[in-house]
Amino acid sequence: MERLKKRLTDLRALEAAMGLMGWDQQCYMPKGGAEARALHLSTLSRMHHELFACSEMGDLLAEAAAEAEPGSLDAAMVRVVRRDYDKATKLPPELVEEQARLSAEGHEVWVEARRNDDFASFAPILRRVFELNKRIADCLGYEEHIYDALLDLYEEGATRNDCLRMYEALKQETVPLVRSIAERPQNDDSFLHGEWDVEKQREFTLRLVRAIGFDLERGRQDVAPHPFCTGWSVNDIRLTTRFTSYLPSAIFGSLHEAGHGLYEQNSPKEWDQTPLAGGVSMALHESQSRTWENLVGRSRAFWARFLPDLQQAFPQLAGVDVDAFYKAVNRVQPSLIRVEADEVTYNLHTLVRFEIECEVLTDQLAVDDIPEAWNAKYEAYLGVRPPNDANGCLQDVHWSGGMVGYFPTYTMGNILSFQFWELLAKDLGDPYALISRGEFAPLLDWLREKIYSQGKRYTPKELVRRVTGGELDPKPYLAGLKRKYAEIYGL
Amino acid sequence: MERLKKRLTDLRALEAAMGLMGWDQQCYMPKGGAEARALHLSTLSRMHHELFACSEMGDLLAEAAAEAEPGSLDAAMVRVVRRDYDKATKLPPELVEEQARLSAEGHEVWVEARRNDDFASFAPILRRVFELNKRIADCLGYEEHIYDALLDLYEEGATRNDCLRMYEALKQETVPLVRSIAERPQNDDSFLHGEWDVEKQREFTLRLVRAIGFDLERGRQDVAPHPFCTGWSVNDIRLTTRFTSYLPSAIFGSLHEAGHGLYEQNSPKEWDQTPLAGGVSMALHESQSRTWENLVGRSRAFWARFLPDLQQAFPQLAGVDVDAFYKAVNRVQPSLIRVEADEVTYNLHTLVRFEIECEVLTDQLAVDDIPEAWNAKYEAYLGVRPPNDANGCLQDVHWSGGMVGYFPTYTMGNILSFQFWELLAKDLGDPYALISRGEFAPLLDWLREKIYSQGKRYTPKELVRRVTGGELDPKPYLAGLKRKYAEIYGL
Repeated sequence: MERLKKRLTDLRALEAAMGLMGWDQQCYMPKGGAEARALHLSTLSRMHHELFACSEMGDLLAEAAAEAEPGSLDAAMVRVVRRDYDKATKLPPELVEEQARLSAEGHEVWVEARRNDDFASFAPILRRVFELNKRIADCLGYEEHIYDALLDLYEEGATRNDCLRMYEALKQETVPLVRSIAERPQNDDSFLHGEWDVEKQREFTLRLVRAIGFDLERGRQDVAPHPFCTGWSVNDIRLTTRFTSYLPSAIFGSLHEAGHGLYEQNSPKEWDQTPLAGGVSMALHESQSRTWENLVGRSRAFWARFLPDLQQAFPQLAGVDVDAFYKAVNRVQPSLIRVEADEVTYNLHTLVRFEIECEVLTDQLAVDDIPEAWNAKYEAYLGVRPPNDANGCLQDVHWSGGMVGYFPTYTMGNILSFQFWELLAKDLGDPYALISRGEFAPLLDWLREKIYSQGKRYTPKELVRRVTGGELDPKPYLAGLKRKYAEIYGL
Repeated sequence: MERLKKRLTDLRALEAAMGLMGWDQQCYMPKGGAEARALHLSTLSRMHHELFACSEMGDLLAEAAAEAEPGSLDAAMVRVVRRDYDKATKLPPELVEEQARLSAEGHEVWVEARRNDDFASFAPILRRVFELNKRIADCLGYEEHIYDALLDLYEEGATRNDCLRMYEALKQETVPLVRSIAERPQNDDSFLHGEWDVEKQREFTLRLVRAIGFDLERGRQDVAPHPFCTGWSVNDIRLTTRFTSYLPSAIFGSLHEAGHGLYEQNSPKEWDQTPLAGGVSMALHESQSRTWENLVGRSRAFWARFLPDLQQAFPQLAGVDVDAFYKAVNRVQPSLIRVEADEVTYNLHTLVRFEIECEVLTDQLAVDDIPEAWNAKYEAYLGVRPPNDANGCLQDVHWSGGMVGYFPTYTMGNILSFQFWELLAKDLGDPYALISRGEFAPLLDWLREKIYSQGKRYTPKELVRRVTGGELDPKPYLAGLKRKYAEIYGL
C-alpha cells in the first residue's frame, strides 16, 4: 500500500501540472504560448502514462489489493485506481500522447474558428478527434455499441441504451410542455440584456459564490471563454466565468461552476491528494452544479434575497420586482446556445450532440456534414435554426478538447439534482425559507454529508443508491419542471 | 545526440510545469493552495532530479559529446547541459527535494512575515535556507570560499574575490559621489507620490512595455508582490509588476522586467525548448533589465517622448515639465528598499546582503542577529536605519526562495549595462535621438544581434569578451554615473 501511495504521489504531481497548464491555457496564456504548451502537455501526459500504465503499477495494485481490508478506504482507493489502470493499459502510449497534443492544439484552433465562424478551419481537428476516439473505443472495448466505451470514460457503467431510454422519457414530457408554454404570453426579459460593467459583474458573482459557501481562500474565479471548474487540491479549486451583454450569463455561469467547486472543496481534507478526493463522476458533478445554478439560483426565494444587491450594483434594474426577475430568468424559449438554455429545453441540446456523436462514430455522418446535421436537428427538436456555425456546432469546447461521449452526463445530472433535492427538502423542511434568508449552510451541510464527503469512495451508481435508495429516475425532474413552469406560465 | 534531446524534452516539460507553478503561486494562487503546491513542486523537482542526475544521463551526455562537432551548436548544448549535470550529480535527491519544498513553503511564510513585520516567524525558514545552502556548497565544492560555490550557481565562474574587488571600486567612487550630491539642493519628487488608478497604471506600463518591443502576443504582464520575469518558451514570457502609491514603482518595475523579457523573447526561435534558449547568466540578464529600466527608461529623451502620454493618463501631472520629471525619477537619496533604490546607491544595497550572506555562511553571524546586522550596515553605508524588518531584512524574495549568493549579480549587471551601452552608442550614433522619437527597434536590433540571439551558446565571460573585447569593468559605469549626476545635480 505504501509503495502504491508513493507512486500515486508522483502521478498526482504530473496531474496537477497538467491541470494548471490547462487552466492557464484558457485563462491567461498568450497566443504565442500554444505550441510549447501543446508540447509540454503531451510530454507530461506521456510521462504520466509511462509511470501509470506499466506492469510495475499492476504489481503495486495487486500488492495493495491484497493488503487492503475489504470495505476499507484503502480498498476503495485500490478500486478507483484499478479502474483507471485497466483503461490506461488498454491504450498505447502514442494514442495518449496524440490525445494530449490534439486537445492543446485543438483548443487554439477552435477559439479562432468560433471567433471567425469558420467551421472549415476546425474540421481537420474535428476529424482527428473522432478518429482518435474511435481508436480509443476500439482499444477499450465494448459490448453493444462503440458509444458505450466512450460514455463510460465520463460516467462509469452508463451505456448508450441508458441514454436512449432517458431521452425518450424526456422527449415525451418536455415536448408537450414546451408546446403549452409556447401558447402562453412570453415573459419579458428585455431588461436582462444591456451593457453591464465587468467589474460590477465580477463583484456580484463573487458575492453570490461566497454566499453559497465557496471558500475563496481555497479557490478563485477567473474569466474564460467557456466557463469550467478545475483544481489540483481540495484547497485550490479554480472557477471560471464570463461577462457578456446578457446578465444571467455571468450570474448562473458562476453559480453553476461554484456548484462543481463546492463538490470538490468539500471532499474530506484528509483525502486531499489521494484518488478518493473529488467528485465521483460527470453526472454526479453536474447534479451539483445544477442544484446550485437552478434549484437554488433560479428560485424565487434566491432573488427575494439577492435582487436588492443586484439592483444596487446595477441601478438600471431598480424598477424590476422579484416576480418579474424570477420569471425573466426562468423564461422558456427554444434557443441556440446550450450553456444559456433554460431548464426545460436544455436536454434537447445535449440530445442533438448525443445523436451526432453516435452517427459520426458509426460512419453514418461525415464530419464535414456536421453543420448541416446540427442545424437540421435544432430545427426539428427546438424549432430554431442556427444562422451560423459559431452559434451552432462550434459553440462547445468539448470536441476541441478531444472529448466525445460527454454530453449525456449533463442531462443525467439534471435528473439527479431533482432526485436529491426532493430528499433534501424532506429532511430540511422548506429549503426555500432558508434560501430567502440567505442561509445556505444547512443546504451545503446536507449535500456535504450525503454526497460531497463521500468523494469517490463508492461507484456513481452505488452512491446514487445510498442516497436515494434507487437509481437514476426522471420522474422527480419531470414533475418538478411541470410544477414550476405551470406556476410561472399559468398553465 | 537524438537520445539526449529526447531526454531533454522530458526534463523541459517538468521545468515548464515548475515554472508555471511558481508563476501562479506568486500571481494567482489562493492561500489555501500553498501546501499542495509545495508538495507538487517538491515531487516534480525530485522527479526531474531522478531523470537528470542519473548515470544514464551521464552516458547520453558522453555519447552526445563524442558526436558533436567542436564549435557547433550541439557542442555548446552539451557544454550547457553538462555544467548543470555536474552540479546536479553532486547533490543528493533529498537535498533537491528539501530545496523545492522549502522554497514553496518559505514563500508563503515570507509573504505573511513581511505583511506583519514579523521576522521571528520567518527566522526558522531562514535558518533552514542557510543550513541548506551550506550543505549545497559543501556538495558542490569550492576552492577558496564557501560563497564561491553558491555564487557560481547564478554566475558561472564568478567568485567572492571578484565581488570584493568590484565592491571596493564602487565604494571608492560612489561614496564621494553620494556625498557631493547630498550637498546640493534636492530634486523635488513629491508629485510622484499619490493615488494612482490601478487600471491606468496597468495600461500605461503595458504601453511602455509594448513600445520598447516586448511582444504581448508572446507574453503578458501580471501583478505580483515582488516583480519578476519567468517563462517556459521564447513565445511565452511572463512579466510581473506592482502598483503602489509611488508611481515610478510600476513604471520602472515594468521596464526592468520587460528588459529581462526582451532578452528571453529574442533567443532564436529555432532554439526554443532547447538548453541554448534564454539568457546566459544572472549578471547578463540584469545588464539587460538595467539597460531598459535605467539607460533607456530613466533618460531625459524617454520622458520627452512619454511624459505627454503619462500626463494624459494622470492629469494631476499636467504641470510637471520633462526636466522636472527627469530629475525626479533620477533623484539620488539613500533609502531602505533595494528595488526602488536609485542607480547611485543601489549597489550599496546588494553589498549589505553580500556581506550578511558571507557572514552567516561562515558562522560569523547568527540568523537571529540578521535584523540588527542589517540595520547597522544600512546605517553605516547608506546613513539610514530601517524602522522595522518589513522595510529591512524581510524586503527581498530571494532568501524565502532558498537562494543565497544571488545579490552581487545585480551589481555586475549594472556594470555590464554601461559597458554594452558605450558600444551601442558608438555603433548607432546618438541612441537618445532615437529614444526621443520612440524608435526603439534599432536599439533592440543591436542588443539582439550582439547578446539576445547568442542565448547560452557561450559562457557569460566568453560572451562579454566577444561583445566588449574584454571583461567586467566598472569604469564606463562609474564614468557614466558621474557624468549623468553631475549634470542633474549641477556638480
